[in-house]
Amino acid sequence: MATIKDVARLAGVSVATVSRVINHSPKASESSRDAVMSAMQHLQYHPNANARALAQQSTETLGLIVSDVSDPFFGAMVKAVEQVAYSTGNFLLIGNGYHNVDKERQAIEQLIRHRCAALVVHAKMLAEDELSALMKQIPGMVLINRTLPEFEHRCVALDDRYGAWLATRHLIQAGHQRIAILCSNHDISDARDRLQGYLDALEEHGIPVDERLIVSAEPDEVGGEQAITELLGHGKNFTAVTCYNDPMAAGALSVLSDNGIDVPGEISLIGFDDVLISRYLRPRLTTIRYPVVAMANQAAQLALALAKGLPLPETTNMFSPTLVRRHSVSVPNS
Amino acid sequence: MATIKDVARLAGVSVATVSRVINHSPKASESSRDAVMSAMQHLQYHPNANARALAQQSTETLGLIVSDVSDPFFGAMVKAVEQVAYSTGNFLLIGNGYHNVDKERQAIEQLIRHRCAALVVHAKMLAEDELSALMKQIPGMVLINRTLPEFEHRCVALDDRYGAWLATRHLIQAGHQRIAILCSNHDISDARDRLQGYLDALEEHGIPVDERLIVSAEPDEVGGEQAITELLGHGKNFTAVTCYNDPMAAGALSVLSDNGIDVPGEISLIGFDDVLISRYLRPRLTTIRYPVVAMANQAAQLALALAKGLPLPETTNMFSPTLVRRHSVSVPNS
Repeated sequence: MATIKDVARLAGVSVATVSRVINHSPKASESSRDAVMSAMQHLQYHPNANARALAQQSTETLGLIVSDVSDPFFGAMVKAVEQVAYSTGNFLLIGNGYHNVDKERQAIEQLIRHRCAALVVHAKMLAEDELSALMKQIPGMVLINRTLPEFEHRCVALDDRYGAWLATRHLIQAGHQRIAILCSNHDISDARDRLQGYLDALEEHGIPVDERLIVSAEPDEVGGEQAITELLGHGKNFTAVTCYNDPMAAGALSVLSDNGIDVPGEISLIGFDDVLISRYLRPRLTTIRYPVVAMANQAAQLALALAKGLPLPETTNMFSPTLVRRHSVSVPNS
Repeated sequence: MATIKDVARLAGVSVATVSRVINHSPKASESSRDAVMSAMQHLQYHPNANARALAQQSTETLGLIVSDVSDPFFGAMVKAVEQVAYSTGNFLLIGNGYHNVDKERQAIEQLIRHRCAALVVHAKMLAEDELSALMKQIPGMVLINRTLPEFEHRCVALDDRYGAWLATRHLIQAGHQRIAILCSNHDISDARDRLQGYLDALEEHGIPVDERLIVSAEPDEVGGEQAITELLGHGKNFTAVTCYNDPMAAGALSVLSDNGIDVPGEISLIGFDDVLISRYLRPRLTTIRYPVVAMANQAAQLALALAKGLPLPETTNMFSPTLVRRHSVSVPNS
């Protein structure tokens, strides 16, 4: 492979000049810039990002840890973070934590080894003290969808409890009293907070909690199928279901329609997240909108500003979900 | 940040020994390994991947270019490639080309700058000669979903034309004669080959081609809504529709159901790719299975083997799609 020396020789300039051009230094003249660019092209020379990183102890790479890019929710997060990376001349390095403490640790470690100065991390399984130690070490590290008390200004999160309260209250206001909930079986704050929001709404309206109407499963389509099947097994003694997320609602909807149970005629259904699929289910899914793009965007901006030691944007990092009314909720038929 | 010297000092060993431990050299004794590991932990020392990359002129990073990770099809591809990366001790660096020639070029350039020895590239817009030049330069570069004649052994692709023929023949065998097609408006081989497969099947069964039944749009849900709306605007003079992909089928299905047109009672619908959503549409979507996981897996294995100069697996790189019968196709009602 061609070296920087070859480029300098062919361009008839010094190695320092080539390096100035590569690093977009204003010191490089237009003419030498042109000469260097054409020499680089002719020699198919690619500046070594690792060498530059080593020199600068940081790379042009923004690191992102999600749970699973193949989950549409995280796909949207990746896309939003990458658009910030592109627009700021950075490149995105992605790792998946797969809701597994070892994989989360390994993925973050890899990004640190690659000297990502800016890191956006979605890690729900790592212990708080371990995460705090990393936050102390990496000034450009930002958490998304998790809040550490001592680092609140570097955590971008959603008010899950409020979102689940909003969903359940919407069902109650439609006239429902027998409301079931499909919970996530992951032991993470999202799961606990969304269940709590459901309980808050019931209590607020004086509706007694029925443990048989609270079921947990994997937070995906198959989990939704299993959870609704378990509920139906105890008899159809409920008129509405609030779901941990849209994929669970999609799974529940599929079992209900296979069993000839009309949604929303017989059972009303509400999701959470508002991922694309919710608009293509029939009936269209009423759900709670998770502003993932805005949140990912802010987390990326924040991480880059922190990494560069720039002043932080004057905004709140706690986002609020909103209700999206579609066609899966109606008044209960008595 | 702690340096390798600090670790050596605290562990009471030489820098060379620390480096042996970091690089998993068998020469390092158990006792020195333990001393180094605990020193690294105590000092929160992270070996510099960039320094190692510079020394080795390649990183432990497998590079992947897709069009858009937030598209469920590519999400599945990323997940499959990453699982190979993890299982072989590599880390995944991902870039999006967004079906844009400049973004594809920029993303590949970035991966090369990061000295990824192994590259899996999904790039449909870059010209053949430019891609060929890159293939010559990077021995560990493999193309997925595109075939360059001179590099066939480094290209993993699907027989799109056969897949579309399979879909259309399935509709013809069900008794349909008036078959429309929703095409992708992207000027890529996938779009041309899938249209050709449709034409092959019609010709094979002596069914005349009706240009009014061939419409193109963006290959996503919204494009499917637009394309089916355009078709219906010309009057419902067709009994079946074959779609470029499942998202377009989902969009078409949503417009048909909104207009009270029963699928498959009045119109049969078949998709392509078999992404997750196809199982949660109602009726469940009959579609063509794109073995994306197997293909991505093979592409990643191939790239790693090429990068390391290992012998290549004895397998074909041209995959065949298969028919997935669900509930969106039935006999036409005359």
